Amino acid sequence: MRMNLLFAIDDNVSTQLMTCLYSIVKNTPNEKFDAYVIQKDKLKSTAEIESFCGKIGVNYHAIIVDPKIFADAPTTDRYPETIYYRLLAHEYLPKSVNRILYLDVDILVINSLKQLYNKQLGDNLYAASSHSGLTNNMTEQFNKLRLGNYEAESYYNSGVLLMNLDAIRETVKATDIFDYIKENSLTLFLPDQDVLNALYGNKIVKVPDELYNYDARMSSIYNLLGDGKWDLDWVIDNTVILHFCGRDKPWKREYNSRYAGLYKHYAHRASMLINEKIMEN
Amino acid sequence: MRMNLLFAIDDNVSTQLMTCLYSIVKNTPNEKFDAYVIQKDKLKSTAEIESFCGKIGVNYHAIIVDPKIFADAPTTDRYPETIYYRLLAHEYLPKSVNRILYLDVDILVINSLKQLYNKQLGDNLYAASSHSGLTNNMTEQFNKLRLGNYEAESYYNSGVLLMNLDAIRETVKATDIFDYIKENSLTLFLPDQDVLNALYGNKIVKVPDELYNYDARMSSIYNLLGDGKWDLDWVIDNTVILHFCGRDKPWKREYNSRYAGLYKHYAHRASMLINEKIMEN
Repeated sequence: MRMNLLFAIDDNVSTQLMTCLYSIVKNTPNEKFDAYVIQKDKLKSTAEIESFCGKIGVNYHAIIVDPKIFADAPTTDRYPETIYYRLLAHEYLPKSVNRILYLDVDILVINSLKQLYNKQLGDNLYAASSHSGLTNNMTEQFNKLRLGNYEAESYYNSGVLLMNLDAIRETVKATDIFDYIKENSLTLFLPDQDVLNALYGNKIVKVPDELYNYDARMSSIYNLLGDGKWDLDWVIDNTVILHFCGRDKPWKREYNSRYAGLYKHYAHRASMLINEKIMEN
Repeated sequence: MRMNLLFAIDDNVSTQLMTCLYSIVKNTPNEKFDAYVIQKDKLKSTAEIESFCGKIGVNYHAIIVDPKIFADAPTTDRYPETIYYRLLAHEYLPKSVNRILYLDVDILVINSLKQLYNKQLGDNLYAASSHSGLTNNMTEQFNKLRLGNYEAESYYNSGVLLMNLDAIRETVKATDIFDYIKENSLTLFLPDQDVLNALYGNKIVKVPDELYNYDARMSSIYNLLGDGKWDLDWVIDNTVILHFCGRDKPWKREYNSRYAGLYKHYAHRASMLINEKIMEN
């Protein structure tokens, strides 16, 4: 089967894109991948990424967007305009693509993506996970209040987002998004995620975060939530996507959490493949 | 190139053998492997191991030894008689094999074995690492005194042992080993390792333990010894063999050290391959 993957990056994280792709291919057997990478300007590392994708059998598709479209979107160092690209990806993707899995590049895939990718979506726009269970209920209520969305089941994390593109093309409009950003820009903490939740939170299928969007900072909390069942062995055997949320990133030298060794090993193996022109066993 | 690998196991650790082999194949590109596995009785899991080796492209050779030979060797639960097999492997291996790398099964290979395997041995019998730098100098002196071997450079760990079989066939004699065991059995803490050091410690080429026999319990000590340079990133990029020495083993559920996630992930991927008849990307 073929799976469509979506990323939105700039040159600062092209290595992380390759680590992420490498982990996907190694841990999702019997599948082939098309990777669509939305970018503002053609990435400087395009040749390297194309060569790497060739080595791991991934079809690479660069999608260059017109930056003028996002001129009014609020951005910071932490939240560059590339974070908005995911919400309007359907405007840039080929019409033939009707399902795609968007992924942040600060994730590592450690088991097969197949079950997530094939999730039944019905009339919904997205499948996503919530990290609300990891924080207290106040935060959840505050987010719903802040965003004025009482129908949504949860406040969803936008880092892993399975997209039902046919439905999205009918529903998600750039004008709605930009109007919302303009009207609410002062109260947005995590801009694209807030837009997703406020406008489309009631059209999202919830998938378990302990499987598909495991916040790697929170291993002791998961252990408590799972009544001791969601320990390291369980995560290794069951969790599909580790998400290295927050400011501490596993590609930094000082990063040293429970999953640091695993991430760094995948990053190292990907870099060996990038640099040494080896074929793998 | 072909590499010869040697193991000595019983049925209790056949899964660990497969995890170890899997890590070797995945992290040693462009090489082919012959795995010789010395065993007392034909392993119950022989068909499973053969099938697994077929999937990862390793030639499996079972070597059944006559247990009577070791009837007099001192054994315990922790040190079964299989630990002696390595010292007499040359008596069971085909004459055509002139170099082989013996490995304990409580190791994980995270970078290519090629440089170690091709180490120049000259007239020496073995290449091995010492963990003496991790303990204090007293232990080192005590071991040399205890074993009566003042010529040896170090007290060597026998868990990773590159063997120069042509030289070993001329020098290492079963009668010498059994005589030594009989005469010294009360003072031996780590029986086979003590024999190796006492009888042949002065014919061993020393290779750095931080590369080829990294004691996974000791990450903070390595960090000190390497003046802060041998941190997690350095180990991931440079270390070839992680050795999970001691009683706490990474296949146990409660094991939770810095390299636990990495080991458990390899164990999980190997078990997926064993059980699910998948071919890998």
